[in-house]
Amino acid sequence: MITKIEGGVCAPLGFRANGVHCGIRKNKSKKDLALIVADVRCATACVYTTNLVKGAPILVTKEHVKDGYARAVIVNSGNANTCNEGGERIAEGMCKLVEAHTGIPAEDVVVASTGVIGQKLSLEPVAGGMQALCAGLNGDADGSTAAAEAIMTTDTVSKEIAFRFRAGGKECRIGAIAKGVGMICPNMATMLMFVTTDCKISPAMLQKALSADVKKSLNMVSVDRDTSTNDTLCVMASGLAGNAEIAEANADFKAFCRALNAVTTAMCRMIARDGEGATKLIECRVTGARSVNDARLAAKSVINSPLLKAAMFGADANWGRVLCALGYSGAKMDVSHVAVTFRSAAGELPVCKEGRGVEFSEEHAKKVLSEEEIVIEVTLRDGRCKATAWGCDLTYEYVKINGDYRT
Amino acid sequence: MITKIEGGVCAPLGFRANGVHCGIRKNKSKKDLALIVADVRCATACVYTTNLVKGAPILVTKEHVKDGYARAVIVNSGNANTCNEGGERIAEGMCKLVEAHTGIPAEDVVVASTGVIGQKLSLEPVAGGMQALCAGLNGDADGSTAAAEAIMTTDTVSKEIAFRFRAGGKECRIGAIAKGVGMICPNMATMLMFVTTDCKISPAMLQKALSADVKKSLNMVSVDRDTSTNDTLCVMASGLAGNAEIAEANADFKAFCRALNAVTTAMCRMIARDGEGATKLIECRVTGARSVNDARLAAKSVINSPLLKAAMFGADANWGRVLCALGYSGAKMDVSHVAVTFRSAAGELPVCKEGRGVEFSEEHAKKVLSEEEIVIEVTLRDGRCKATAWGCDLTYEYVKINGDYRT
Repeated sequence: MITKIEGGVCAPLGFRANGVHCGIRKNKSKKDLALIVADVRCATACVYTTNLVKGAPILVTKEHVKDGYARAVIVNSGNANTCNEGGERIAEGMCKLVEAHTGIPAEDVVVASTGVIGQKLSLEPVAGGMQALCAGLNGDADGSTAAAEAIMTTDTVSKEIAFRFRAGGKECRIGAIAKGVGMICPNMATMLMFVTTDCKISPAMLQKALSADVKKSLNMVSVDRDTSTNDTLCVMASGLAGNAEIAEANADFKAFCRALNAVTTAMCRMIARDGEGATKLIECRVTGARSVNDARLAAKSVINSPLLKAAMFGADANWGRVLCALGYSGAKMDVSHVAVTFRSAAGELPVCKEGRGVEFSEEHAKKVLSEEEIVIEVTLRDGRCKATAWGCDLTYEYVKINGDYRT
Repeated sequence: MITKIEGGVCAPLGFRANGVHCGIRKNKSKKDLALIVADVRCATACVYTTNLVKGAPILVTKEHVKDGYARAVIVNSGNANTCNEGGERIAEGMCKLVEAHTGIPAEDVVVASTGVIGQKLSLEPVAGGMQALCAGLNGDADGSTAAAEAIMTTDTVSKEIAFRFRAGGKECRIGAIAKGVGMICPNMATMLMFVTTDCKISPAMLQKALSADVKKSLNMVSVDRDTSTNDTLCVMASGLAGNAEIAEANADFKAFCRALNAVTTAMCRMIARDGEGATKLIECRVTGARSVNDARLAAKSVINSPLLKAAMFGADANWGRVLCALGYSGAKMDVSHVAVTFRSAAGELPVCKEGRGVEFSEEHAKKVLSEEEIVIEVTLRDGRCKATAWGCDLTYEYVKINGDYRT
């Protein structure tokens, strides 16, 4: 039983958070520095971008979590601290500032950055903001919200979620904050996402849960097929819920994995729905594939097709583009088995059966596709495997946002 | 010595062409049916889409050119004849109409279609248009132009090219017509392109030349990373130039390959420049790669990045997006070796050296990137291999065109 609760990363026992404007971003109304601290050392697992160009903070974080533990996360927005001079020194410097202000050793700090690539970053604004950041740390929902706001870039809404679940007979909590929403095609991790839990779990099992989860959650989200250089997903487990430590793949581990998946899936939907310029969340559910890999390739190919994304923006039931995207996805399939249905709050619209078009009312199609959440159901009838991918429509606004993002 | 000449597909000896409006498209001012006929049976080579969803005409054409020869090409626009009822019967019917009106056996006819996927196609308009189509066949530039116009869909300009070259001491000619400009990410062939030559060459060597050429030409073009279901590239060689038949990989074969590459490369540039909604041609030249495959992966990844494409539309020198696209391209590289320079008629703009940003004037950057043709030079300094890819910017117009293409 997984129940949604308030509080984001502060919902689990033992975590406080805050976010402030320190001056990395010029716009003073935008927070740009976030901090999450734990009362105790936490079992910590991370996954990072597979992009060969990696942000400097990722190199520093990898070192710091090598032992499986961490106690704090510091994040800035407005500058990716990537492809620049002295990036690692700056990232390490941010961790040392956390140590100076909280007493948490720098080597127990996770650091992340998001924003423009290739710009110099100075420690000065970070140093100047630390006092207010630490003074305002709190364990209420406010703290989580401030941190969620401080990691936003082109996001239009902040992204938080929390759930309650049971493991080892104890009530546990898991919460998260995340940011999207451009350069989103995570590969082993999303842009930036920080998950906290008070469930007691060993670092090894935490990493196992996380690595398995991202394959079906964050790696299945795509806004623009651009895999970022700074993707970082970090989970910290304080263990304060009082359950017996999860140290093997038992029933408690399964309960934790289900709760983790509830968090990551909710975040996938939030990130896709808030994709740069998006007006719609597109969810593609593929069933009947020969293998999970085929199902994933097929689902992701559909939500990545710029032609389909533009058609969804125009509420145009151009299902030939779904077939086309399936055909070049690399997934094995018998085209003559394929069925496609569009579905939304306004009803369902079967458009293709056995690889061929079926008659439909254009009026009904317009109604179904004018909703804000469109499900594209693809039935392959080749096997028993399935996958879901999340994306968004392609709009004028995406072009506008990215035509002059830097300036 | 390869010299540009007039005449498109009618430039080589032995070819006539025409295009008419027959009524597949509702707009009477748009031609929708094209025919190319040869005076003699031609050695013929084709490459087709790798999309698992294949247009019905491709299945019919494959049968017809199995013996290495053909004598005519019939093409309609306005309907892709794909994922519909009885598509193969219609495609075969189009070939039979060519036989009825020209005497050329149906099994010597290449057939292709382009337009919306999943719509019923009737033979009626094709049958009605055949008389005018055949009556107007001519071997002048007019014939080629009419055919080039009749295969356009969202293309804004018709695409023709022809060159003169020498093989076996004889003057030979090679010409082509093609169409783009959406669902363009050819994989072993482009959308639709028909090449004629009067050079005498065996079917086997013609196929060899074509298959090698597309890897460095048409497979390196991408407008939207959507590989079409109907891509077909067909080369017909009449042999009327009088040269000794090219039947092995000798100097004449090389001369032919160079001429073929001049045609396909010119077409790549035309297709990319006319990409749906495009205002700019983007050419990415990668040098210093460890392997040709690495160079191709890197170049294609850059011109495919929606973020970079939007930045080019906005004339924003956001080179971090070039680095990001290189990093996730799958190409092996040492990021600390990478240098990037933007170049156009307005000058050059080095933006990155050794994987890090270099200072530049924003004013100069704006000037360089406001041109209609932008070259992105990427130097990997890891080896001696290179590749070039062609694409275009991502604009409001692309979204507009594809938001309501079908209706």
